[in-house]
Amino acid sequence: LRSRMELLIMDTQAEVCRALADLDPGASFAVDSWERKEGGGGISCVLQDGEVFEKAGVNVSVVSGLLSEEAARQMRSRGKSLKAKDGKLPFCAMGVSSVIHPKNPHVPTMHFNYRYFEIEEADGTKQWWFGGGTDLTPTYLNEEDAVHFHKTLKEACDKHDLKLYPKYKKWCDDYFYIKHRGERRGIGGIFFDDMDSPSKEEVFQFVKSCAKAVVPCYIPIVKKHCHDSFTPEEKLWQQLRRGRYVEFNLVYDRGTKFGLLTPGSRIESILMSLPLTARWEYMHNPPESSKEAEILEVLRNPKDWVH
Amino acid sequence: LRSRMELLIMDTQAEVCRALADLDPGASFAVDSWERKEGGGGISCVLQDGEVFEKAGVNVSVVSGLLSEEAARQMRSRGKSLKAKDGKLPFCAMGVSSVIHPKNPHVPTMHFNYRYFEIEEADGTKQWWFGGGTDLTPTYLNEEDAVHFHKTLKEACDKHDLKLYPKYKKWCDDYFYIKHRGERRGIGGIFFDDMDSPSKEEVFQFVKSCAKAVVPCYIPIVKKHCHDSFTPEEKLWQQLRRGRYVEFNLVYDRGTKFGLLTPGSRIESILMSLPLTARWEYMHNPPESSKEAEILEVLRNPKDWVH
Repeated sequence: LRSRMELLIMDTQAEVCRALADLDPGASFAVDSWERKEGGGGISCVLQDGEVFEKAGVNVSVVSGLLSEEAARQMRSRGKSLKAKDGKLPFCAMGVSSVIHPKNPHVPTMHFNYRYFEIEEADGTKQWWFGGGTDLTPTYLNEEDAVHFHKTLKEACDKHDLKLYPKYKKWCDDYFYIKHRGERRGIGGIFFDDMDSPSKEEVFQFVKSCAKAVVPCYIPIVKKHCHDSFTPEEKLWQQLRRGRYVEFNLVYDRGTKFGLLTPGSRIESILMSLPLTARWEYMHNPPESSKEAEILEVLRNPKDWVH
Repeated sequence: LRSRMELLIMDTQAEVCRALADLDPGASFAVDSWERKEGGGGISCVLQDGEVFEKAGVNVSVVSGLLSEEAARQMRSRGKSLKAKDGKLPFCAMGVSSVIHPKNPHVPTMHFNYRYFEIEEADGTKQWWFGGGTDLTPTYLNEEDAVHFHKTLKEACDKHDLKLYPKYKKWCDDYFYIKHRGERRGIGGIFFDDMDSPSKEEVFQFVKSCAKAVVPCYIPIVKKHCHDSFTPEEKLWQQLRRGRYVEFNLVYDRGTKFGLLTPGSRIESILMSLPLTARWEYMHNPPESSKEAEILEVLRNPKDWVH
């Protein structure tokens, strides 16, 4: 399974990059492959300052080595205790992650991440789990796009178990919460971690369906709006929302925090998720019943987009 | 002493705001006074999008109430244990803090903060301490400015004890360290915390000297460079450095983290320190022996500016 997951990760990167390149033919990807001296490496593809995309990165990494018990505990959101041999646990982690920030304020930002972990305990038993998710961060609310996005993800989940979408939709709303603002980062999608049942094969098939849904849930929305006209005020609101994106990623995101604290991790790949530009204004409060207030309302009180 | 410190805080705010307003006469300050329902309040003065300053905020707050033992421990960098009555400790905290982000990339960003804490233990004994500092974050290195800034601070320190400047200069270099980048936020200044000797009066006099040094250490540098010409490339480098400023403040700064986690704290005043605009480019590495590489070198290996 390890090699099939590796293949899925690579395929997803290639598929997403191809879709982005088709939409922004003038822009070029910087492709960097890097190695981690502790074991493993990755490939980062980043498009910057294109016509359609302000910054779009797709990163894959496959990393292995030894973890301290403390680090192993932190990797897992449920914090299961693991029995180590001599305090060290052999592990393997692989994943694909991506953040896409478009230029046009009518095209939402999208993030996805699918990952697999394995840890070997002292007695030789292997703990394994999958995690991931796909979520959307619009500057302005477009209900039709929100429904399309969630519906596509729901269909991918429903093929496996009808309980998955509602559970992971809620987990996403809870996870991407900017506590000090009382707002979610975006209008959600799905998010899950520590998924280790019903079986490795079934979870892999579920993750595969989610990964295959990335392009169909997002790219049509980009195509639909990337030539929409916009005002300087709309661009400014986008920049303020980018600021919130930075706040979430630097203050709360577990992956980013874990990466920044891990010796030997590649900072440029971790911080690839930050937008090209962002803005913070003191006491910016959009007027009531404006389009800016409309999206804020949904970020404060998440909605169900599909039933 | 509480009321004399309160007066010093207010005076410092007024003095700095006056100096900023003189330099940027067209800009207007937003002045907000706010109350904290748990006790106390503050006044925030923020100038935004002026001619000279992109964003400049000066905030004072005087807050009192009850702290949990855990929160009390976190407030103090040395983490002394405090004996609480029924698990709650009456406290009083007051301070002035400010971040000034100018528009021109040849004018550095400046930050200062001076604060006083009191905590009453179960047996009625009062713990008290002062903290604070003033530090400079230039986009480009100007040695003359760096020397003037540090020399002015050193003179303020030397009046009290010749050991203070070298100790607090080093503490500043250590504190404003962006670990994941291997860089300091700026070229330093002075920083101290938990200062509770030789006596309350003597520490207050020292803090007063530091607060009085804010305007003379910084304002002449603004005056000297605010009309310097600059290129779009220099503005871009400034924006990238602003991004690093955001990284430090959101990931490492103890004051910001403490504020974001404290219920009832005023988010807009805490995040006032973030620049109006910032930028993150993937894999931006300035060419060797450029002016951009020159400042990076100093941020990686702090220098002694005065002896």
